[in-house]
Amino acid sequence: MQDKLTLMIPGPTPVPETVLKAMGRHPIGHRSADFQAIVKRTTEQLRWLHQTESTVLAMAGSGTSAMEAGIINVLSKGDTVLCGDNGKFGERWVKVAQAYGLQVQVIKAEWGQPLDPEAFRTALEADTGKAIKAVILTHSETSTGVINDLQTIAAHVKAHGTALTIADCVTSLGACNVPMDAWGLDVVGSGSQKGYMMPPGLGFVAMSDRAWEAYGRSDLPKFYLDLGKYRKSAAQDSNPFTPPVNLYFALEAALEMMQAEGLDNIFARHERHRRATQAAMKAMGLPLYASEGHGSPAITAVAPNGIDAESLRKEVKNRFDILLAGGQDHLKGKVFRIGHLGFVADRDVLTAVAAIEATLQALGLDSGSTGAGVAAAAVELAR
Amino acid sequence: MQDKLTLMIPGPTPVPETVLKAMGRHPIGHRSADFQAIVKRTTEQLRWLHQTESTVLAMAGSGTSAMEAGIINVLSKGDTVLCGDNGKFGERWVKVAQAYGLQVQVIKAEWGQPLDPEAFRTALEADTGKAIKAVILTHSETSTGVINDLQTIAAHVKAHGTALTIADCVTSLGACNVPMDAWGLDVVGSGSQKGYMMPPGLGFVAMSDRAWEAYGRSDLPKFYLDLGKYRKSAAQDSNPFTPPVNLYFALEAALEMMQAEGLDNIFARHERHRRATQAAMKAMGLPLYASEGHGSPAITAVAPNGIDAESLRKEVKNRFDILLAGGQDHLKGKVFRIGHLGFVADRDVLTAVAAIEATLQALGLDSGSTGAGVAAAAVELAR
Repeated sequence: MQDKLTLMIPGPTPVPETVLKAMGRHPIGHRSADFQAIVKRTTEQLRWLHQTESTVLAMAGSGTSAMEAGIINVLSKGDTVLCGDNGKFGERWVKVAQAYGLQVQVIKAEWGQPLDPEAFRTALEADTGKAIKAVILTHSETSTGVINDLQTIAAHVKAHGTALTIADCVTSLGACNVPMDAWGLDVVGSGSQKGYMMPPGLGFVAMSDRAWEAYGRSDLPKFYLDLGKYRKSAAQDSNPFTPPVNLYFALEAALEMMQAEGLDNIFARHERHRRATQAAMKAMGLPLYASEGHGSPAITAVAPNGIDAESLRKEVKNRFDILLAGGQDHLKGKVFRIGHLGFVADRDVLTAVAAIEATLQALGLDSGSTGAGVAAAAVELAR
Repeated sequence: MQDKLTLMIPGPTPVPETVLKAMGRHPIGHRSADFQAIVKRTTEQLRWLHQTESTVLAMAGSGTSAMEAGIINVLSKGDTVLCGDNGKFGERWVKVAQAYGLQVQVIKAEWGQPLDPEAFRTALEADTGKAIKAVILTHSETSTGVINDLQTIAAHVKAHGTALTIADCVTSLGACNVPMDAWGLDVVGSGSQKGYMMPPGLGFVAMSDRAWEAYGRSDLPKFYLDLGKYRKSAAQDSNPFTPPVNLYFALEAALEMMQAEGLDNIFARHERHRRATQAAMKAMGLPLYASEGHGSPAITAVAPNGIDAESLRKEVKNRFDILLAGGQDHLKGKVFRIGHLGFVADRDVLTAVAAIEATLQALGLDSGSTGAGVAAAAVELAR
């Protein structure tokens, strides 16, 4: 059956009809007053979403391009950075830093475990020579469904006095509270196909005043990712390079919908979906992959003991046209991931749980209590 | 009046309804078999468009991101490059090369004049030590409406034996013949909002085998723009980072339309529009900015002596909702530019000419022979 696909992956996430329709308009000139009005408005909307006074810059690119821009615009060759690594995206920022010749100290945690804020505090306090120029970490680690304690770690960075906090908020922004200014985050990177409820293709970077000071010293080579060019253009409600005009139409519409819902409601919805999904999986006897208390509001990773996660995922797709995400790298076949990020309603979570239960039953893999997952989810959704 | 805008700028160019509709579908998972099928198909279509056996890589980004990727993936720090500069985009590649610490030799021509192939031959023949690693130039210089003789210059580079040809084909690909393999082009960069008849947001880079050999030696730092990652993923019909899924839908539909029209017909159409536009401007007494015989098939720049080009452009927009492009940098107010690139029909060219004539008459700036432009265009369109 065509056109019945439901995305329950951590991106691309489902897109509202309103946003698709806005995106489907004929493009306009990107140097026109009409387009400048869109840049002006979306820039304000993005400030609201980031809870910041800083300018949020948008570029044609993925979340990785935004994070790379954030890193290479505030650092210089040979600089020491402290990277948190407890999953595929943590690993990625280590690789980006290394690709640019930075000295990388890594604070690791096992996949499925959160980063330990104390390890950051210790490393930062030990750095009396102030060699560490930045701490790079992922807020919601998409590969494992773990949320890291960005607020606490950012406070330790603040106490260090010199280092900047560069945060990958790709799957946390628009899912849970990320008050950039209140937490003192210096660089926040994100991507459009996540909490933004729109298709992929736009990356976002917000930088604090301290980050812009560091930009003035940065000597890493860049041109397309040179955020100074974006800032200069943004001051004139414009872009340095041809922006993805139709994705801007989508952005404006999506942020308008988000503003109508309100940040608190959006965060409460994601939190409710996290609770409902986790409760359902437990009721079905399927262990969560993220350690207790550290599950992301955007994504729940499940490690179904003794069941091939990839087969289960494929059956859910074949039978019910719901796309779940698989495990990445060494987790392939061991983990499946349920995205509950962005334009996801209570109904979607209930449906996904029901579909997983029905599939387990059809495969003879259920624990004999089919329906328990839906019942548990329903309790949490009703709270 | 809403929704009546006609784009006659060199990008974003008009987008067919078929392409907009394809783009407006709900996104699908970018790691799904359905999406892999789209990558596989569009990769073949892109080979057709580039007339190459090489793989053409696509990334979320602008034409500049594609060109920067082409440059930084085949060169190393301190390498000498020869850059052609006869307009804003020629200038831009000089800046990109300098940003990465390359030694840049510039061959300049006045804005409005083509690059002199002999100057390239002389410089390349003088380089007996084979210091020049690449020649970077723009095929169709969007800022001035000049087409450079890429074929001849590429042949001189070939004769050099070592240097690579890196060509900005952003406004030539899909407008005129750019047979990558036959001309021996090593790197070809382009962007979606031009001849591709789709919205901005996708950049394309094709690289020859020689370019990939140079990639193996390249030491310039990169991660998001590291084309090796794209090549590895492309071999599996995939992308290293989340691709702009909806723009891929548009790409598939647009390239299907282009294949139905056929390369020869597409090139003949652009050539007809170039002739018709040039003839019309001459008939109206408006001097062309590009020197005789070197006008681009994608864009005609006009320098209306004694008339403020910016006022004329704005009046055409206000009266007839046709968006022409202004002059860039020092040409602002002195030049306006008519884009006839991509999804442009004979009717659009005739309409633009008529609208310019009508506006000049309304402003009392006509030469007393209103209608002469349309008549001249009609002759060329009927040939």
